[in-house]
Amino acid sequence: DSKLKVFSLNSNPELAKEIAENIGVELGKCTVTSFSDGEIQINIEESIRGCDVYIVQSTSEPVNEHIMELLIMIDALKRASARTINIVMPYYGYARQDRKARAREPITAKLVADLLETAGASRVLMLDLHAPQIQGFFNLPIDHLVGVPILSDYFEKKNFEDVVIVSPDHGGVTRARKMADRLKAPIAIIDKRRPRPNVSEVMNIVGNIEGKTAIIIDDIIDTAGTITLAANALVENGATEVYACCTHPVLSGPAIERIDRSKIKELVVTNTIPLGEDKASDKITELSVAGLISEAIIRVHERQSISILFD
Amino acid sequence: DSKLKVFSLNSNPELAKEIAENIGVELGKCTVTSFSDGEIQINIEESIRGCDVYIVQSTSEPVNEHIMELLIMIDALKRASARTINIVMPYYGYARQDRKARAREPITAKLVADLLETAGASRVLMLDLHAPQIQGFFNLPIDHLVGVPILSDYFEKKNFEDVVIVSPDHGGVTRARKMADRLKAPIAIIDKRRPRPNVSEVMNIVGNIEGKTAIIIDDIIDTAGTITLAANALVENGATEVYACCTHPVLSGPAIERIDRSKIKELVVTNTIPLGEDKASDKITELSVAGLISEAIIRVHERQSISILFD
Ligand SMILES: Nc1ncnc2c1ncn2[C@@H]1O[C@H](COP(=O)(O)O)[C@@H](O)[C@H]1O
Ligand SMILES: Nc1ncnc2c1ncn2[C@@H]1O[C@H](COP(=O)(O)O)[C@@H](O)[C@H]1O
Repeated sequence: DSKLKVFSLNSNPELAKEIAENIGVELGKCTVTSFSDGEIQINIEESIRGCDVYIVQSTSEPVNEHIMELLIMIDALKRASARTINIVMPYYGYARQDRKARAREPITAKLVADLLETAGASRVLMLDLHAPQIQGFFNLPIDHLVGVPILSDYFEKKNFEDVVIVSPDHGGVTRARKMADRLKAPIAIIDKRRPRPNVSEVMNIVGNIEGKTAIIIDDIIDTAGTITLAANALVENGATEVYACCTHPVLSGPAIERIDRSKIKELVVTNTIPLGEDKASDKITELSVAGLISEAIIRVHERQSISILFD
Repeated sequence: DSKLKVFSLNSNPELAKEIAENIGVELGKCTVTSFSDGEIQINIEESIRGCDVYIVQSTSEPVNEHIMELLIMIDALKRASARTINIVMPYYGYARQDRKARAREPITAKLVADLLETAGASRVLMLDLHAPQIQGFFNLPIDHLVGVPILSDYFEKKNFEDVVIVSPDHGGVTRARKMADRLKAPIAIIDKRRPRPNVSEVMNIVGNIEGKTAIIIDDIIDTAGTITLAANALVENGATEVYACCTHPVLSGPAIERIDRSKIKELVVTNTIPLGEDKASDKITELSVAGLISEAIIRVHERQSISILFD
């Protein structure tokens, strides 16, 4: 069988190391640096001819750098005769630009899919895509993993008395339902409504949360506006305490400040996007997706179904 | 006939304005900004349905941002039913990664060509490509303009007595020859040689430069190492004064410091890459390529040959 190699680019070096260790391979030797003028220079320092190569790279901030790093790496691997080029993209950037919400908007999530195919990707492994439709933007096989089991397992260990799982918007109800099933809990939904134009939104809560521990679940937390307002609304409406969790901690702009100031007791995230120094908060707990991803890689490499990973 | 529109992205706003003025159109209304997490957001604020759109964008520093801006803009224009999407790329970034100089190197200049085609470009207009072979990386029509006439005209007005045009390396001799023809001057070549491994290069000058005004011409000046060493070697070998010129002033890292400290009397560049505040030097003169580009756009739009622009 052909050899499996794992390479890391600059987005998730720690996660890539963990994945390689789990699989039992050395991380592939390559350096990704910049020339004086900012152009990316990639040196792959070992032969990969005929290998099945897995590149670990999230297209997180700085997203455009990370996309170009990935495309250039794919180009180099293709020209160096890799057998397959498998993209392990824990976080898929630009996923929120997946439709024309207004006239003359780009659909950048589709553009990025096309760019990856053009560069020469063979397959993409992703976690909790913002919209499942994005899989259809590719003509490649996609392995789509979910973070709900990892997040649920963490909360299960807390043995809360009386829990409710809360979706912060209508789009996230399916995800909340999945977590609720695992924790044998009911769900509630934050039903944001703007009563009249130019009047601020009202946070209406659908479902019973009084006297309960609320766990809000979302896929992405970016500026943390929605989630912190939701947390405060839950407490005002009688929840005893509020936890929040998400797969992808984008946490840009005012996010950390908002979380620290909010009624959220603990925010649980995964390492699809590393937190880094500027995203430090005592409230945040980071769980690793390395186990999930490395098991998926092994199963893909051994041509086994990965559906077992969803149970 | 269909309508011509010119849009500017973030690399060359001044040049784009000049081009639009020359052509006699308003610059297209669009805003290119970033979301909080650094993802690019493009709003095209006027209909472009059925139009021939020209986008002015150099893939200069920050190169990866500028490439992604361009690709996303092309995607938006394509989905908004532009008739043709014409890329005006005064400076083509990554042009120096146009071949595998070592094992397992990417060919990023080809990757970028593929990305532009994939996004939906109809045609690309460029100036002084680092290697003419890059035209072959595209399956699109390329209009390739040259900066030599603009640079030569500037020096012609100086009415130097006894001039020699100098190529700083073997690769640039054709360009030096073109300038020499226009200025009716002889040429000389800097013939860099490393006598033994791990010994520093020797600057050997082929051609007669003694008592002459030397004008060094190159396509790109990046860190300015080669050109400043060449200038000093020319003075040491008897040139009375040394001028330098190039089409693309990348001028990264130590470039400005080196130029200021060197024997170069004046460096003449074009605005394919804007100089910006961090690249200010009293020695630098900037010439505009707006006239050349706008004439080319008009001729392309009116289906006339552009070969007249090379005379
Ligand atoms: N990087 C981003 N940051 C914030 N908002 C975004 C971003 N990308 C897209 N959007 C906007 O988010 C909305 C889509 O988000 P959603 O409704 O959650 O799918 C659209 O209105 C987009 O314009
Ligand atoms: N952005 C860059 N800055 C400096 N050197 C580069 C850059 N891109 C490519 N190169 C190197 O420049 C050489 C090619 O330049 P040239 O011989 O002038 O075509 C190759 O060895 C490349 O590795």
